[in-house]
Amino acid sequence: MKIRIGIVGYGNLGRGVECAIKQSNDTSLYGVFTRRKPSELKTLTGASVYSIDDILNHKENIDVLILCGGSATDLPVQTPELAKSFNVVDSFDTHANIPKHFENVDTAARAAGKIAIISVGWDPGMFSLNRLYAEAVLPDGKDYTFWGKGVSQGHSDAIRRIEGVLDAKQYTIPTEEALAAVRGGNNPELTTRQKHTRECFVVAAPDADKARIEEEIKTMPNYFADYDTTVHFISEEELKRDHSGIPHGGFVIRSGKTGLNGENTHIIEYSLKLDSNPEFTSSVLVAYARAAAKMNAEGLCGCKTVFDVAPSYLSPKSPDDLRSRLL
Amino acid sequence: MKIRIGIVGYGNLGRGVECAIKQSNDTSLYGVFTRRKPSELKTLTGASVYSIDDILNHKENIDVLILCGGSATDLPVQTPELAKSFNVVDSFDTHANIPKHFENVDTAARAAGKIAIISVGWDPGMFSLNRLYAEAVLPDGKDYTFWGKGVSQGHSDAIRRIEGVLDAKQYTIPTEEALAAVRGGNNPELTTRQKHTRECFVVAAPDADKARIEEEIKTMPNYFADYDTTVHFISEEELKRDHSGIPHGGFVIRSGKTGLNGENTHIIEYSLKLDSNPEFTSSVLVAYARAAAKMNAEGLCGCKTVFDVAPSYLSPKSPDDLRSRLL
Repeated sequence: MKIRIGIVGYGNLGRGVECAIKQSNDTSLYGVFTRRKPSELKTLTGASVYSIDDILNHKENIDVLILCGGSATDLPVQTPELAKSFNVVDSFDTHANIPKHFENVDTAARAAGKIAIISVGWDPGMFSLNRLYAEAVLPDGKDYTFWGKGVSQGHSDAIRRIEGVLDAKQYTIPTEEALAAVRGGNNPELTTRQKHTRECFVVAAPDADKARIEEEIKTMPNYFADYDTTVHFISEEELKRDHSGIPHGGFVIRSGKTGLNGENTHIIEYSLKLDSNPEFTSSVLVAYARAAAKMNAEGLCGCKTVFDVAPSYLSPKSPDDLRSRLL
Repeated sequence: MKIRIGIVGYGNLGRGVECAIKQSNDTSLYGVFTRRKPSELKTLTGASVYSIDDILNHKENIDVLILCGGSATDLPVQTPELAKSFNVVDSFDTHANIPKHFENVDTAARAAGKIAIISVGWDPGMFSLNRLYAEAVLPDGKDYTFWGKGVSQGHSDAIRRIEGVLDAKQYTIPTEEALAAVRGGNNPELTTRQKHTRECFVVAAPDADKARIEEEIKTMPNYFADYDTTVHFISEEELKRDHSGIPHGGFVIRSGKTGLNGENTHIIEYSLKLDSNPEFTSSVLVAYARAAAKMNAEGLCGCKTVFDVAPSYLSPKSPDDLRSRLL
């Protein structure tokens, strides 16, 4: 019996989940739930589309819902609400609000006897796991997270809001110098400027003042002012041709010392190089949806994060197989 | 109340555990158990030493035993035997015998209501975890494990058994070409020879036939014949000066595809660069000893591997703290 999954929200993430479910023999897609008019939404694989308003009518046919809405306004409402009736997994990524979100979801999921796994993806998600494992193994050390090279949607949007900008793509890039310093094991103190640079590809309106646009980007508080930023003006065709992907990735590196007097240094490094940020996040979501279904079948309930899920729950393979093949 | 740990066996691994326990605020070392005469063993930190024969008399004072014996003859006997009376953690690393060891230990631990976590370290251990996480997230892909640059004790010993060899150190080295091919995401088929090279530093007896020694090394079945091997003859002083450490490390890399037609490629890479192989293994053992104590306190029992342990058990920090700081 396959794990029957419902997708809530059908943007990049929802489509990624749809594709990821196809890659696993033990999961099946029940359908997509949308706020749009279902008849107007066409899915990549021909999966059924339902109105989000009717979702409770489908309760008996769904083992886990994967919530693919945004962290700003969708998930804070949807996750606790849907956890009253379903096992759910979300990718809530507003770090500062995770404790509050956890509490709201935990209350709902416990009362309903459901499992809710929040903040699943790669950061938060796989990167968080690696920060935890590395800190637990090397307590006398320091960890560093670098993001990129990859597209930051928020920064791209910020550029697009500048007058005279038609379109833009922003890449966050970890600096080689900072990576080398961290890998050297000396636990350097690094400023924001030292860790990452920002590279912007901008399509300006024909009559726009490019010098002014560049200045506005480079001095934009929070987004760019604290970074070394490079701005390239390119044509709409070039942007489409060379910058239409959504790559991302990054590095979690911890260096720590062991020995009677800390005489030995160790470097633990985890890195991701992703062609498609949303598709990779989706793949992580499907693995944790499997875990949610298995944990709930064992009688577990409440809100969980990647920290609370034993790795074996993520795999469709049997514990025997995992031990003999991967251990 | 700190987690009281007993160490069984006092070689490199036992000494590493002794040092690692000092680095954690929530663990304390109760004592070392040895087959040697306790009065003749001096510990690094002045910890108490007891005879292994008396270990059952100390049952009430110990929360977890960390078993630091060898996988060939010690652990297959010790782990199931001691799991009848203690929570235990071992670093059993004979891959082919893990299923049998698991079964023996599980029977003993279940009957006693104890937790036993086996095959803890970095491979098996952290590398296994990364193989599992990566496979679960990217099912349509392939993973590769590379070891080194690091000292292989088994290969060094094999060289030392050759006539005319006074001492030797062997390094296993992953080839840059193979690493690059894997990171390229094309899932290459790699032969043993393509993945690793072997570099040997040999101290020969003054009158020894070096050409014959080099030939014997390079053609040794299983150990060297399938690899490109380099042999350097050096003096005893040079060996001591330049090759007395026990560094190791390696890489677990998985590349996999996502998307409707597998159009996007992702690379997940985990790597370790360790100044001291036994001290790092020891640090992992202590983190899992913490997990064993916490899991048993919750009423869990039986044999577990790293696959069965939720990450949060490894940390001395509270779940709230982990969520707000590391997630």
